[in-house]
Amino acid sequence: MANDDQFKKVISHAKEYGYVFQSSEIYDGLSAVYDYAQNGAELKKNIRDYWWKAMVQMNEHIVGIDAAIFMHPTTWKASGHVDAFNDPLIDNKDSKKRYRADVLIEDYCAKIEGKIDKEVAKAEKRFGDAFNKEEFVSTNPRVLGYLEKINEILSRMGKSLEAEDLADVKALIEELEIADPLTGSRNWTDVKQFNLMFGTKLGASAEHAMDLYLRPETAQGIFVNFLNVQKTGRMKIPFGIAQTGKAFRNEIVARQFIFRMREFEQMEMQFFIKPGTQKEWFDYWKETRMKWHNSLGLGEENYRFHDHDKLAHYADAATDIEFKFPFGFKELEGIHSRTDFDLKQHEEFSGKKLQYFDHEDNASYTPYVLETSIGLDRMFLAVFSNALVEEALDNNTTRTVLKLPAVLAPVKAAILPLVKKDGLPDIAKQILEDLKWDFNVDYDEKDAVGRRYRRQDANGTPFCITVDHDTLEDNTVTIRHRDTMEQKRVKITDLKDIIKAEVDVKHWLQKMK
Amino acid sequence: MANDDQFKKVISHAKEYGYVFQSSEIYDGLSAVYDYAQNGAELKKNIRDYWWKAMVQMNEHIVGIDAAIFMHPTTWKASGHVDAFNDPLIDNKDSKKRYRADVLIEDYCAKIEGKIDKEVAKAEKRFGDAFNKEEFVSTNPRVLGYLEKINEILSRMGKSLEAEDLADVKALIEELEIADPLTGSRNWTDVKQFNLMFGTKLGASAEHAMDLYLRPETAQGIFVNFLNVQKTGRMKIPFGIAQTGKAFRNEIVARQFIFRMREFEQMEMQFFIKPGTQKEWFDYWKETRMKWHNSLGLGEENYRFHDHDKLAHYADAATDIEFKFPFGFKELEGIHSRTDFDLKQHEEFSGKKLQYFDHEDNASYTPYVLETSIGLDRMFLAVFSNALVEEALDNNTTRTVLKLPAVLAPVKAAILPLVKKDGLPDIAKQILEDLKWDFNVDYDEKDAVGRRYRRQDANGTPFCITVDHDTLEDNTVTIRHRDTMEQKRVKITDLKDIIKAEVDVKHWLQKMK
Repeated sequence: MANDDQFKKVISHAKEYGYVFQSSEIYDGLSAVYDYAQNGAELKKNIRDYWWKAMVQMNEHIVGIDAAIFMHPTTWKASGHVDAFNDPLIDNKDSKKRYRADVLIEDYCAKIEGKIDKEVAKAEKRFGDAFNKEEFVSTNPRVLGYLEKINEILSRMGKSLEAEDLADVKALIEELEIADPLTGSRNWTDVKQFNLMFGTKLGASAEHAMDLYLRPETAQGIFVNFLNVQKTGRMKIPFGIAQTGKAFRNEIVARQFIFRMREFEQMEMQFFIKPGTQKEWFDYWKETRMKWHNSLGLGEENYRFHDHDKLAHYADAATDIEFKFPFGFKELEGIHSRTDFDLKQHEEFSGKKLQYFDHEDNASYTPYVLETSIGLDRMFLAVFSNALVEEALDNNTTRTVLKLPAVLAPVKAAILPLVKKDGLPDIAKQILEDLKWDFNVDYDEKDAVGRRYRRQDANGTPFCITVDHDTLEDNTVTIRHRDTMEQKRVKITDLKDIIKAEVDVKHWLQKMK
Repeated sequence: MANDDQFKKVISHAKEYGYVFQSSEIYDGLSAVYDYAQNGAELKKNIRDYWWKAMVQMNEHIVGIDAAIFMHPTTWKASGHVDAFNDPLIDNKDSKKRYRADVLIEDYCAKIEGKIDKEVAKAEKRFGDAFNKEEFVSTNPRVLGYLEKINEILSRMGKSLEAEDLADVKALIEELEIADPLTGSRNWTDVKQFNLMFGTKLGASAEHAMDLYLRPETAQGIFVNFLNVQKTGRMKIPFGIAQTGKAFRNEIVARQFIFRMREFEQMEMQFFIKPGTQKEWFDYWKETRMKWHNSLGLGEENYRFHDHDKLAHYADAATDIEFKFPFGFKELEGIHSRTDFDLKQHEEFSGKKLQYFDHEDNASYTPYVLETSIGLDRMFLAVFSNALVEEALDNNTTRTVLKLPAVLAPVKAAILPLVKKDGLPDIAKQILEDLKWDFNVDYDEKDAVGRRYRRQDANGTPFCITVDHDTLEDNTVTIRHRDTMEQKRVKITDLKDIIKAEVDVKHWLQKMK
């Protein structure tokens, strides 16, 4: 399939051009953990800074914090993670392989969906232009049977999981005769709940140790600091606290490259509001966050909202911003109206009041919370996979180009002497010395200049600056634009302003207006 | 003591002005873990960015990476941390308290030092101006006796620890009759080695789990990626790989606020060089790193080098850059000539060659490594504690001012309407809207303007901009400098350039030249 191919290209390009390496690759890697390489580290940092600038610096009423990964373990009792942050797991007794029971069942349903696709394809072939897919799907008895079956299975699974009736989840697997996808064995253990938090021990020995967890989300670091920030920062509601940082989940099925990792980074903002105003702020943040995404120009058609019908226990409204990844539309960011659930829980477990005194109303209340939460690694994958293009050129060749938004590109310009003699390298290096104060720039003198252009295209560098023999005469250089391949002759002294106009954060953020 | 007082003021100021909070404070905190609050998060980010810009962006031959905290466990076998990253611990059987055996012995020696100080003070009182401390210490028999005893104890402890003769360490504690500082009990267990790495388990059950460690240093993430970065980045030796990120150590004695935390952040750079050139690069990086520190203007007298006599097993030269913290000169940054120890170890444990082919020499070799490693939290404490000043003013009052380097200050300017009427807040907010694109700025309209100035002084804000009734006439405002308290009348349209000239990273980095 084309999308599978595209995804494979994304992964291999990420390795080849120094964006993402498998973690500990020399030790044959660590499953679902990745390292950001020399270009990836800069791209990731630029995305983080772009978010921080838009959310914190540009908002008078939002401040940022940087809470530790380690938190007091009672935090996770209060948040519900100790009791309810579980996956239902099942082992195959023959293969000794372990699976998520719900994923086995969902994969079974996906196979039935495959059968529907086949029926549709057959009918389409038969009826040609006259084929109406919607009508066919809603009337064909075989397809309707498949759909009913899927619906029945998923609804039973949902109910059993919610009621924690794990015996019935196992019964369902056995009734459907689901087999171990690797070996075909149907010899299953019982289904067990498995907590997704990583545990560790603080202190010197088992006897004196305190059980800690690596935080599974950054949000709680904001909730426990809410009152300290509000008081020392003299914040008035409505106000927000933002944070970026690592979180950890011991995922059993961790796949799709950096989309679902065991160690990942979140960019979260919790907005504290007056109870009753949550609907208005929910709409505000939906719109504002979508504007942020669109300012980067990845294509409005690649985003969509997915409002949740079924809400988490802490939410009274929730939507995902989904992005069209190479493997389809998937969650990129969540916007959740969390009510006062978290603050109330921490009040109960800590015995401390976490209330706000509203001078206008002359009354205290526990604020409601509106959350925006985006995965930095997912945003990286969105930007990177969207940018990777193979372009057919006029001369019947193709070029691979990474059309990253210039504001996020790791290297803003490459300075290239046309040849390695006649003093051209010296001038190129002088330009490098001048520009590096303002931009991350590279110098490249190896290979023919056309090959160097292609290399910088694949690297995502928005500008190539070429120093040639005319430069010696008139202090001008050629500046080449990555996306258009257009070349212009400009003065060396104008380079800084030309580059700045296209890579400056301000220029991009103004598109949010 | 004055320094103890100063340190207490630092800690309480950090809390009161939103720089550093105890982690999970509502749950009574987590020992030796801290959260950076709204101002602290910005200061920490600014220090990190200042380091990254100086080390990565300004250096054509240094690139950055961002490796995961989780690494393959064999990494820590190869690095020596599994076998040798230990502290010698001893328990008191009566109090059930646990101590570092070496720290108990060092504290004992510190008490003897206290006796020397007393002798010196007595003699000073007796001899007055004629007193020569150096001569007294080197000739007084009682002082000489104390010094000999300290020397004897520390030398015996050093030898025993090196030989892992823990029985002798216990014997020493018993011979010196060292008691539990809390209870006075001398009823000790044996001394045991305790590994300082935090462990966790990857995977779904004890049976299937893989033992992981939270990285105790960021350096290994660079070593295991060395060849991938060199090849995909087409790097030529000498070149460096830089990284900032969290590391974790299960310290038994973790104290002194954010100086020694269990979760901390490092800023490290590993410079890969040709064997034989390490002396020259050691000197280069000593000088370059000290220039970076001095560019921030914390005072050259507050830094000193401390060359190591005793070297770690991997090093052939090492020095610390020590800073004068409120509790004395302590390590802030380390510069280590690590030889090819780490790469060779990873070659041995992974079975992969980690060599560089030198085109000039037409030969392959395992590079040597020169490391610069600075604690971001320690740098934060250095900057913050150095900046906190109580100034006597002419009118017999004092002001508390946080003289942070303007380039690092969390908030660059506060915009203050003189009064909350006559349209002054509207103009102030318009200025805020204009400046926020370039700087982190605040708006403050509460209390008398003098009180707001004091608040911004204590907050570390370099500029206050006051909008008054004259502003309505001529579009000028007052700009007040935090350090000099000097006020000038300037045009609103000049504000951006005036602030930029003093907070711009380029301006500060140019001082490194």
